[in-house]
Amino acid sequence: MTRSTAPSARTKVRRLRELARYDRSAVNAILDEATVCHVGFVDEGQPFVIPTAIARIHDYAYLHGSRVSRMLKLLAAGNPACITVTLLDGIVVARSAFNSSMNYRSVVILGSAEKVTGENKKIALDAFTEHLIPGRTQDIRASKPKELAATTVVRFSLEEASVKVSEGPPSDEKSDYESDVWAGVIPLALKSGEPQSDPRLKSGIPVPPYIRKRKT
Amino acid sequence: MTRSTAPSARTKVRRLRELARYDRSAVNAILDEATVCHVGFVDEGQPFVIPTAIARIHDYAYLHGSRVSRMLKLLAAGNPACITVTLLDGIVVARSAFNSSMNYRSVVILGSAEKVTGENKKIALDAFTEHLIPGRTQDIRASKPKELAATTVVRFSLEEASVKVSEGPPSDEKSDYESDVWAGVIPLALKSGEPQSDPRLKSGIPVPPYIRKRKT
Repeated sequence: MTRSTAPSARTKVRRLRELARYDRSAVNAILDEATVCHVGFVDEGQPFVIPTAIARIHDYAYLHGSRVSRMLKLLAAGNPACITVTLLDGIVVARSAFNSSMNYRSVVILGSAEKVTGENKKIALDAFTEHLIPGRTQDIRASKPKELAATTVVRFSLEEASVKVSEGPPSDEKSDYESDVWAGVIPLALKSGEPQSDPRLKSGIPVPPYIRKRKT
Repeated sequence: MTRSTAPSARTKVRRLRELARYDRSAVNAILDEATVCHVGFVDEGQPFVIPTAIARIHDYAYLHGSRVSRMLKLLAAGNPACITVTLLDGIVVARSAFNSSMNYRSVVILGSAEKVTGENKKIALDAFTEHLIPGRTQDIRASKPKELAATTVVRFSLEEASVKVSEGPPSDEKSDYESDVWAGVIPLALKSGEPQSDPRLKSGIPVPPYIRKRKT
């Protein structure tokens, strides 16, 4: 079963507050589980899709990257963009090729970025670290001024974010339910493996508990 | 360490044949391991990024979907597109936030699609099924004419595909190697779980071996 919600304008969200709240909590849950997003932008008529890290703070999705990257320059300049997060949950093995599909949860954010500066930039950079590795910011040194200067941070409002969720068993044609072929779902999930210490790590430094307990 | 290869024109590929061959085998390996890709296209100036299935046959990447979907209509009309496949391999936990990153293998394909019809369309649809579940096409009924008619298949040449691979331990600033903080890599991989039979499956149908042995 696939369901989707797509607020298309601020007025719509105001008129359907219950739906808007549902949307926002579904959007938040998917973004907060994401390891990467895919960013779409256009350069001289050619669309590009680039994987990058994402972090959410309240009602905004944050992206960051090198100050000199084409993507960050185009985003920071306010060009129209699309951020898509996809969490793959399974392969839906139907009794026909036609009805076979995938289970997933996805968010599509349309909009233009605003550049994030000053204290908010530092807060956002910490959010990227904590998003991927909760607890890490307590353990590492602060960013240096030259590192902050080399990094561009932008954010997108979640106002126009839409959610699509596909879940559950296959939905087959009526006549196919008589088939003797197996049907079902193969679950998929992104899993963490055993942490690998850097070969250049000083001796005697154990893997910290917040690294061990990180879930994906 | 991050390395990338990007043939930008046919002439370049001709001039650097060794590199081109390396590229193509790296492109093929990443596409063949992909569960989904993200497709970028532009509609009235707004970029969109949509997750969808992908399958490779020889020197082409194939996409498919409903005949009435906006994406397939725009792709089949030959509008410029970008197909990106990202395989996440790990979180690179450096001694600073600035040098922390991710390990991944990605392919970016730029180009315009051509529509696939007739016998080649059937071959491509089988390729989608076999790509996700090797052995499945032997087990299910053939597609019906109305199913074929409801589906659009397009393909993109891999001529302009580029590869980017980021792998290995963190690369830290020289002074940070004296730090007492842990550093390393948390491996990530998309894993299959135990197959779940459809609740409506006829009784006595076991999970077939080709489903059990499917690797992600």
